[in-house]
Amino acid sequence: MARRYDSRTTIFSPEGRLYQVEYAMEAISHAGTVIGILSKDGIVLAAERQATSNLLEQSIGSEKIYEMNDNVVAGVAGLTADANILINQSRIIAQRYLQKYDSPIPVEQLVRRLCDMKQGYTQFGGLRPFGVSFLCAGWDSAFGFQLYQSDPAGNYSSWKAACIGENFSNAQSILKQEYKDDDSEGSSSTAGTQMTMDDALKLTCLVLSKTIDTAKLTSEKLEFATITLKNNKPHIHIYTSDEIDQVLTKYDSVIKPSNND
Amino acid sequence: MARRYDSRTTIFSPEGRLYQVEYAMEAISHAGTVIGILSKDGIVLAAERQATSNLLEQSIGSEKIYEMNDNVVAGVAGLTADANILINQSRIIAQRYLQKYDSPIPVEQLVRRLCDMKQGYTQFGGLRPFGVSFLCAGWDSAFGFQLYQSDPAGNYSSWKAACIGENFSNAQSILKQEYKDDDSEGSSSTAGTQMTMDDALKLTCLVLSKTIDTAKLTSEKLEFATITLKNNKPHIHIYTSDEIDQVLTKYDSVIKPSNND
Amino acid sequence: MARRYDSRTTIFSPEGRLYQVEYAMEAISHAGTVIGILSKDGIVLAAERQATSNLLEQSIGSEKIYEMNDNVVAGVAGLTADANILINQSRIIAQRYLQKYDSPIPVEQLVRRLCDMKQGYTQFGGLRPFGVSFLCAGWDSAFGFQLYQSDPAGNYSSWKAACIGENFSNAQSILKQEYKDDDSEGSSSTAGTQMTMDDALKLTCLVLSKTIDTAKLTSEKLEFATITLKNNKPHIHIYTSDEIDQVLTKYDSVIKPSNND
Amino acid sequence: MARRYDSRTTIFSPEGRLYQVEYAMEAISHAGTVIGILSKDGIVLAAERQATSNLLEQSIGSEKIYEMNDNVVAGVAGLTADANILINQSRIIAQRYLQKYDSPIPVEQLVRRLCDMKQGYTQFGGLRPFGVSFLCAGWDSAFGFQLYQSDPAGNYSSWKAACIGENFSNAQSILKQEYKDDDSEGSSSTAGTQMTMDDALKLTCLVLSKTIDTAKLTSEKLEFATITLKNNKPHIHIYTSDEIDQVLTKYDSVIKPSNND
Amino acid sequence: MARRYDSRTTIFSPEGRLYQVEYAMEAISHAGTVIGILSKDGIVLAAERQATSNLLEQSIGSEKIYEMNDNVVAGVAGLTADANILINQSRIIAQRYLQKYDSPIPVEQLVRRLCDMKQGYTQFGGLRPFGVSFLCAGWDSAFGFQLYQSDPAGNYSSWKAACIGENFSNAQSILKQEYKDDDSEGSSSTAGTQMTMDDALKLTCLVLSKTIDTAKLTSEKLEFATITLKNNKPHIHIYTSDEIDQVLTKYDSVIKPSNND
Amino acid sequence: MARRYDSRTTIFSPEGRLYQVEYAMEAISHAGTVIGILSKDGIVLAAERQATSNLLEQSIGSEKIYEMNDNVVAGVAGLTADANILINQSRIIAQRYLQKYDSPIPVEQLVRRLCDMKQGYTQFGGLRPFGVSFLCAGWDSAFGFQLYQSDPAGNYSSWKAACIGENFSNAQSILKQEYKDDDSEGSSSTAGTQMTMDDALKLTCLVLSKTIDTAKLTSEKLEFATITLKNNKPHIHIYTSDEIDQVLTKYDSVIKPSNND
Amino acid sequence: MARRYDSRTTIFSPEGRLYQVEYAMEAISHAGTVIGILSKDGIVLAAERQATSNLLEQSIGSEKIYEMNDNVVAGVAGLTADANILINQSRIIAQRYLQKYDSPIPVEQLVRRLCDMKQGYTQFGGLRPFGVSFLCAGWDSAFGFQLYQSDPAGNYSSWKAACIGENFSNAQSILKQEYKDDDSEGSSSTAGTQMTMDDALKLTCLVLSKTIDTAKLTSEKLEFATITLKNNKPHIHIYTSDEIDQVLTKYDSVIKPSNND
Repeated sequence: MARRYDSRTTIFSPEGRLYQVEYAMEAISHAGTVIGILSKDGIVLAAERQATSNLLEQSIGSEKIYEMNDNVVAGVAGLTADANILINQSRIIAQRYLQKYDSPIPVEQLVRRLCDMKQGYTQFGGLRPFGVSFLCAGWDSAFGFQLYQSDPAGNYSSWKAACIGENFSNAQSILKQEYKDDDSEGSSSTAGTQMTMDDALKLTCLVLSKTIDTAKLTSEKLEFATITLKNNKPHIHIYTSDEIDQVLTKYDSVIKPSNND
Repeated sequence: MARRYDSRTTIFSPEGRLYQVEYAMEAISHAGTVIGILSKDGIVLAAERQATSNLLEQSIGSEKIYEMNDNVVAGVAGLTADANILINQSRIIAQRYLQKYDSPIPVEQLVRRLCDMKQGYTQFGGLRPFGVSFLCAGWDSAFGFQLYQSDPAGNYSSWKAACIGENFSNAQSILKQEYKDDDSEGSSSTAGTQMTMDDALKLTCLVLSKTIDTAKLTSEKLEFATITLKNNKPHIHIYTSDEIDQVLTKYDSVIKPSNND
Repeated sequence: MARRYDSRTTIFSPEGRLYQVEYAMEAISHAGTVIGILSKDGIVLAAERQATSNLLEQSIGSEKIYEMNDNVVAGVAGLTADANILINQSRIIAQRYLQKYDSPIPVEQLVRRLCDMKQGYTQFGGLRPFGVSFLCAGWDSAFGFQLYQSDPAGNYSSWKAACIGENFSNAQSILKQEYKDDDSEGSSSTAGTQMTMDDALKLTCLVLSKTIDTAKLTSEKLEFATITLKNNKPHIHIYTSDEIDQVLTKYDSVIKPSNND
Repeated sequence: MARRYDSRTTIFSPEGRLYQVEYAMEAISHAGTVIGILSKDGIVLAAERQATSNLLEQSIGSEKIYEMNDNVVAGVAGLTADANILINQSRIIAQRYLQKYDSPIPVEQLVRRLCDMKQGYTQFGGLRPFGVSFLCAGWDSAFGFQLYQSDPAGNYSSWKAACIGENFSNAQSILKQEYKDDDSEGSSSTAGTQMTMDDALKLTCLVLSKTIDTAKLTSEKLEFATITLKNNKPHIHIYTSDEIDQVLTKYDSVIKPSNND
Repeated sequence: MARRYDSRTTIFSPEGRLYQVEYAMEAISHAGTVIGILSKDGIVLAAERQATSNLLEQSIGSEKIYEMNDNVVAGVAGLTADANILINQSRIIAQRYLQKYDSPIPVEQLVRRLCDMKQGYTQFGGLRPFGVSFLCAGWDSAFGFQLYQSDPAGNYSSWKAACIGENFSNAQSILKQEYKDDDSEGSSSTAGTQMTMDDALKLTCLVLSKTIDTAKLTSEKLEFATITLKNNKPHIHIYTSDEIDQVLTKYDSVIKPSNND
Repeated sequence: MARRYDSRTTIFSPEGRLYQVEYAMEAISHAGTVIGILSKDGIVLAAERQATSNLLEQSIGSEKIYEMNDNVVAGVAGLTADANILINQSRIIAQRYLQKYDSPIPVEQLVRRLCDMKQGYTQFGGLRPFGVSFLCAGWDSAFGFQLYQSDPAGNYSSWKAACIGENFSNAQSILKQEYKDDDSEGSSSTAGTQMTMDDALKLTCLVLSKTIDTAKLTSEKLEFATITLKNNKPHIHIYTSDEIDQVLTKYDSVIKPSNND
Repeated sequence: MARRYDSRTTIFSPEGRLYQVEYAMEAISHAGTVIGILSKDGIVLAAERQATSNLLEQSIGSEKIYEMNDNVVAGVAGLTADANILINQSRIIAQRYLQKYDSPIPVEQLVRRLCDMKQGYTQFGGLRPFGVSFLCAGWDSAFGFQLYQSDPAGNYSSWKAACIGENFSNAQSILKQEYKDDDSEGSSSTAGTQMTMDDALKLTCLVLSKTIDTAKLTSEKLEFATITLKNNKPHIHIYTSDEIDQVLTKYDSVIKPSNND
């Protein structure tokens, strides 16, 4: 019966569902995993590249992680071409804000604008939803470091640690177990103090090793980025292959044993 | 037979029904409950969060309750992305009114404008209705405190106590029984004088405890907001987690026994 | 066979019918009854509220009867959200006329403009008809008191007494029997002179008592409005609950016996 | 097979027919009859009202006959709301012509403009044809008195005597038989000289009495209008109820015997 | 199979046909015949009226033959309302040309512009083709007398003698046999010199008598027009009823015997 | 299965085909053959007229061959009305270029612009492809004589000898065999030097005689045009009937024996 | 089931796929192969022509390889008419950039703009995707030589060696095996140093010989282009037939034995 209601974004099913939006989310569930973890010093983003080939040029640009503004970096899962459109629009929005107010755009405002665009494509005829989810890691003076997740419906929410793409539910459950937070009443036995960037990177590697279906994590299949504060200004760093390898080596011990879980 | 008439907002069924609008309402009936109670000193809004996770960042922004203007606060049930669009438009309408007339927009006028937008999406082709209902609590100098409910069709009505979202009929019937009003000829045996804010908060807790399917009400699953008068100006207060916990503790006795009803 | 022709306003059926318009009229036949009676001193409008709850705020605004201009008051039956759009447009039309000609808009002109809007929604694609009928009671210096009825097709006609909404045919037949008019050659045995406002109010109560399915008429379920002349200017009065109760009490005798008809 | 081609005005059937236009004409064949008769001194228009009720206000405006301009009066059969739109447009066209050329619009030009509007609604998608036919009686200095008939397709033609609406073929055949014209080689035995207005009124009454399904012709069910020359200017007269009754009385003898035909 | 491809002008059938255009041509094949014959002194146009009634006013305007410009006269077959639109546009085009270049529009240019309009209605969605064919007879200084035929597809071609409408193939074959031309290598035994206007009128009568299904050709069922040169300027003459009768009488001998062919 | 994908230009079939474009090409394959042959001194275009009648006026305009600009002449196969639109647009493009740059438009640029128009009609909804192919013969100072073929898809290619329309594959294979070119490694035994205009005309006659299904080639069924250089300027010559007959007579010997092939 | 979701770009299938985009890619898989290989001194592009005929003019323009800007050359596979539109737009974008910033457009920016256009045609109704893929070889001062591949979805990626069109997967696997790169950990035994242009040309010939289904590679079926640095400026060279033959001769030894692989 779903079939009668699933070919347009402009109709609700009798149960009040928008099937086209759900199908767009399905597209994302086949995309490479993206993980974001908030620590007290900054945020770690990591993404899995699915298409790898020794013929792919890896030195130019990243495939899954993009700077949106000086204070926001985003990991994407889904249709890359769709993501490009939205990233471009987001950059323009951020620049216009800067020009108008001479201060970087607040993170949530940028995310909300991005999501309003997405929402429009779920309500007007002759369009399809954007087949892409984002993890946006940013910093602004009002709320500090923030990690937002957005979906094709145009919803967004604020997370301490989040995951989108393939195996996201698996990754999410590891994060729930292992994420340490001051005010967390979570089930992790070692909980107590808030995580540092090092903890976040370590946890990222742990989650990646358990969710990516590969014998060995290599820089070829991964992208890493962090946003931290430098001289009280947000600083985005997208890792080179070498830096990723260093991280993987450093937390090798974490990754190995975890394979026996 | 309904099927022939339920895939567009632009057609009536032979019984004069608009099925797409009814399906949009169905979407709302799966959303977290929102309750609003009018008292002589102000209005209480309370909302149930459905998605909870220890990984969700709770300190930034609320998910279900939004300020629309200095004198109007709204609780939403339904598609969040749709709500964002309407809240944003409402804020712009309110600000334009302020700029034009140098006085806050009358509550009903804001609600009517919001509903006119909703109505348009039920009459023109190539669109779907907004899948969201609002409870708008506001104050203006002409009519004092007012509580409006609006639905996806674009209808609105003024209430003393109202409820939208999951279990709304259940909550509505408790409200009918327990709401005390000067001019009420209702069936409540203790009726007689108008409620105070304390009564309203207490009643809110009672209703929440009976409609939310959980062992224990916690601040994690709830949002609270009030609109009162301070120095003869409307004052909106959105509760922090701690404040919600205080309220829950204070009315613990109300909640407990009611579980045995 | 009707089914092939009933899903768009832009097609005629082989018998020359517009089914979508007829379905919109069906929506009105489920709405609360609205009655209008013309007397020599003015017009009485009365409407039945269908949704009643002790939680509904009744002091703010009316639900079924609206002022359109200083000289026109309208009762609506059908989709409230649709009605709001048309009432708003009508008010703007009336104000523009006032501004342009410095005299109140003639009643028929306002009704015609309202109906032209309705007609457009029955002829252009991608739209549905407005699901609402109006009874417009007005006064202008050219034609005095006038009572117009309009339907979703955009037709209107001028009446001495009319009824729209649920049970309208029942009410219409009582009106036919009981309405007294100078030039009426009707079947009423007591006919002879034109009605006064008091006669009109009395007849309204009689019709309401026979068409509304309730044990007892109460102000909770009713709205009343009159348009009369004060100092040679049209004066619209929308009754408060108390005033409605007074009317109901005054004509109690009329209502009672009529239950035995 | 017709069914494949009858749901849009924008497609021809294999036989080259436009079914939607034919269905619109069907709508007209259920409407009250309108008759027009050209005489040497002017034109008589008469129309049958279908909806009659003692509650209908008959003193304000006519329902079937409208002045289009100082020199053109029209009788309509079909959807009243559609007619209103076209009449309004025609009035604007006539006024613009007057303003531009300081002389009344030639009758055929007004009719052609009216028909061009109608034609557009039979050729463009997302529209339905206007469900209304007109009999336009007018006078201009170039061609004197003229009587045009237009249909939903946008065709028009010039007649000496014509009829639209219910029973139109019946009426047309009586007219053919009884119409007297100088240059007529018709079958009427009494033919010979051109008709006067009196002859035209008499013939109108005869036709009405034979086509309207009623025991007795009354002013309640009829509308009459004439266009004649006064001081060499066109003069339109729409009859009051009393005047109609006088006409009916005057030609009572014509009406009576004709029932025995 | 045709059915899958015949409901829109915007699709080709697998054989590369445009069925809607062919259906529009079908509409024309039911219309009254129009004949055009080129002679050395001018062109004769003749058309058959299909709807005849003694009540039709014949003194005002022609039904099938229209002046398009001072140098072009056209006979139409098909939907009259469609023809009106195109004739009106053609007149505007011709006048604009005159205004711009101070010389009458060349005949082919006017025909081409007319056909370009027609073509557009066969290529864009949401439209239907114009259901009308034209025979345009004109004169310009460059090419002298010219006779063009255009169809609903927007094709046009130049003819010495042509026919459109009902029985057009029948008429065309008579023309082929009887048309005399200097450079004709046709089968007519009497061929040799080019035709005069008299010859053309005579041939027109012959063709009409053989294609129109009537006992006797009368001016009531016919329209005639000629375009000739007067003082070296094109002169269009549309025949009155009397003039048509004179022509019919003059060539009575031609018409009579031909019935025995 | 093709049927699911063949009714719109805006969808690909699963095999990546655009059926509507292929159907448009089918329309062309029923059109009269057009042949173009490039020689060292110029280009010959020849076209077959399909509709012939002794009543057709042949002295005015050609039917299949059109000048597009002073330096480009085109032969068309397909829907004439579609071709007219494109030829008109091409002429405008060429004139605008001349006005802007004061030099004739390069041939390929004109062809590309023409094809871009065609492409648009294969990608946007609510349109059908142009059902016409062109052979464009032109000269510009950069590339000398050039012969382009374009199809309804908007593709074009440069040829030494090409053929479109009915029997095009047959003609193409004769051309392949007989065309002589300096740099040709073709199979023709007499190859060696580039063709002259005379050779080209002769080859054209040969191909025509073998592809056109007629007992005898006559000027009535053919159109001829050449583009050569005169005083170093491109010179287009469209042949009169007499000139065509002379050509046919001159190469009679070529045509005759070839019938025995 | 795919069939329900494959006729519009504006709907996702339940698995989150866009079938129309996949069908557009199918169109490309039937197109001639295009190969691009990045070396340390520049980039080689080679393309297979599918339509070959001795009648095709080969001296004017290339069919598969186009200059987009002074620093970007592109090979196309798919619908040529679609490619023309995009190439034209790309040229305009590049020129506008040059005019605005007085420096050549960065390669990735041009490719991204090209892909944004493509993406739009996969998300909006009433359109079909562009049926064309590009291999863009370019140089800019920031990133040196770059080779991008784009598909109909609007995705692009940066490669060291890539292939599109027929047999692309076959070609891709040869490239993977044989491509030599400094930082390559590939399986090629002779890997070690980065390739020179000569190596790239040689590898291109090897791949072509193995993927093109022909007895002998000839210049007739191939197009070659290179982009290198000359005086520190990008230099694009499109090979003539003779130059292609020279290349084929030079690497004849590579091609021959490889047939025995």
